[in-house]
Amino acid sequence: MKLEILPVLGIGDVTEGDDLAALIATAAPWLRDGDVLVVTSKIVSKAEGRLVDVPADGPERLAARDEMLAAETARVVATRGATRIVQTHHGFVMASAGIDASNVDKTRLVLLPTDPDGSAEALRAALREHYHLDVAVIVSDTMGRPWRNGLTDVALGVAGMPAIRDHRGEIDPYGNELQLTQMAVVDELAGAAELIKGKCDQVPVAVVRGYLGVERAVDGQGARALIRDAELDLFSLGTAEARAVGLREAAVLPDGPGPTPADPAAVDRAIAAVAEVVAPGTVFTHVTDEAVRAGLIATVPGWPAPAGGLVLGTPPVPVDPADLVRFGADLQRLRTALAAEGISSALLSPPAGSTASAALAV
Amino acid sequence: MKLEILPVLGIGDVTEGDDLAALIATAAPWLRDGDVLVVTSKIVSKAEGRLVDVPADGPERLAARDEMLAAETARVVATRGATRIVQTHHGFVMASAGIDASNVDKTRLVLLPTDPDGSAEALRAALREHYHLDVAVIVSDTMGRPWRNGLTDVALGVAGMPAIRDHRGEIDPYGNELQLTQMAVVDELAGAAELIKGKCDQVPVAVVRGYLGVERAVDGQGARALIRDAELDLFSLGTAEARAVGLREAAVLPDGPGPTPADPAAVDRAIAAVAEVVAPGTVFTHVTDEAVRAGLIATVPGWPAPAGGLVLGTPPVPVDPADLVRFGADLQRLRTALAAEGISSALLSPPAGSTASAALAV
Repeated sequence: MKLEILPVLGIGDVTEGDDLAALIATAAPWLRDGDVLVVTSKIVSKAEGRLVDVPADGPERLAARDEMLAAETARVVATRGATRIVQTHHGFVMASAGIDASNVDKTRLVLLPTDPDGSAEALRAALREHYHLDVAVIVSDTMGRPWRNGLTDVALGVAGMPAIRDHRGEIDPYGNELQLTQMAVVDELAGAAELIKGKCDQVPVAVVRGYLGVERAVDGQGARALIRDAELDLFSLGTAEARAVGLREAAVLPDGPGPTPADPAAVDRAIAAVAEVVAPGTVFTHVTDEAVRAGLIATVPGWPAPAGGLVLGTPPVPVDPADLVRFGADLQRLRTALAAEGISSALLSPPAGSTASAALAV
Repeated sequence: MKLEILPVLGIGDVTEGDDLAALIATAAPWLRDGDVLVVTSKIVSKAEGRLVDVPADGPERLAARDEMLAAETARVVATRGATRIVQTHHGFVMASAGIDASNVDKTRLVLLPTDPDGSAEALRAALREHYHLDVAVIVSDTMGRPWRNGLTDVALGVAGMPAIRDHRGEIDPYGNELQLTQMAVVDELAGAAELIKGKCDQVPVAVVRGYLGVERAVDGQGARALIRDAELDLFSLGTAEARAVGLREAAVLPDGPGPTPADPAAVDRAIAAVAEVVAPGTVFTHVTDEAVRAGLIATVPGWPAPAGGLVLGTPPVPVDPADLVRFGADLQRLRTALAAEGISSALLSPPAGSTASAALAV
């Protein structure tokens, strides 16, 4: 048993309206049933006319490019300098939405195919219908990734095989159930094909022979199956963008202690976190619900008794209006530190007779 | 020209102290100079004795596993539920630091090799010395990635070839300089090898034949070259973790308008962002430096004139102490919203005679 990776040479320049099935079948008369055809998305885009005319240079080119990027973007994921990592309307997270200026005239940009799974299926169907070939088709593109330098080719679309090989429930020879079990085989096939494409001076199509077995019968859901829902993704936003979300959330922190009693250790951590930045002399004291019930602050009737207790705040004396404003700002700092610990809070005014100037319900 | 991917069958169980070079050379007498040997890190770990005894189940097993994970972790990147994405001491960002319980006795865990580049180099040297084979060696493992479902095999270590194929500076047939130019070929090779390993029921070694050319002469820097510095990474922290960083930063926001004048539109956005949450009747007004210089607020002498101007704040009337505390909290909300816009600020007390109760220098 072995796999072979074969380049398809001599395809030449592809332009709008070209019949990719005919170009490939002519260039690779040696194609066989069961081969996996890996086609660079760029020639799919060119054949499908996904090209945009842009000025060759200057600010007009940049403006046109920005306009295209905005149109191709469903959601901005991260930016730094000129880098724009976005989620496309397909759901792919890519730099510049996959818009490419290489291997095309200087006055044109290439956009990703509108429906790469559909493109793969159309090519597979054309090869079956006109050339009696039963092959799987992968539409591939080059992507970067977090944490690791260098790019790899991955699948944007696939037809004729499932995107993922699923080992869930299988047992290893030691009797352990396999944990890492869903392999993105179409991404590995796209990367394998890039090895020969890259070595052969940007050949746009390669064939992986020997991989497909019974899996081929199952058509799967296309490369859509590879797109992770942003809500399930631990890295749905760039670090800087998520940090800014935290700041914006802090600015509009809603009121209210939550239904769960606050962890006293976490409250103490929050008080400690702001200790260095609040006005000298300001004191925050966590009074737990038990203490309230036990009457320890019974000398100050009128405070509510929230589940997590109260944080009583006392500003430095003497208190003038500017001190009270600063004290309010420091209370808000504490509320924010509590939020960072996952604790919601509410700002309360003191009942008559309290020596505290304000309190947070936590 | 073509590539072949060949499984190395019959290696069997690997245990501590085994001679991997001998096992592989015996199982694959057909190995040739120029082959790329892709070895699953697990058998490297086993041969190197990177195994830890743990209880077969129960809370003791979980505790032992947590202890190992902490020891293998340089930095926690993201957590959710039981999932722990960490950066290892090598620099790899992986779930559970690559600690694996599959394909090993139930009472042992497998850790990653201590120095995968060194392991690859040692295996390459042993094959050269004892079997007169000049091959490149990749030590591979299975990893998940953000944004895309399914796992792929990538390289932890490499010897005998560079990790990255660099096209920088090359010109495409249309005269454009290539942009996407650093291909992580060892990751693509590892993924290609996984295709045959996975199909052959967890074969731990595969060979890619036909890839190496003149590149083989260059030894490169190992797979270390693939590790991106966290400071250069747009996704160095999980989204939830980075959001918490933003909240913690908001709690300890430092004082001081920056050296750059604040963008008036950004100041207006920040004021608008908190408009719904501040006390009814509270008014924030941005007075730019030009206005200050032009004497528009000359009726209130004594305010400083920072580069970005002042945001004057007036609480609702009548003002009692609790109103001033709430007003201070609202000023801190505005400071946080300004920080989310990248604008630093400082809380100022009003000079005598001002109708504003406080101001922010921006």
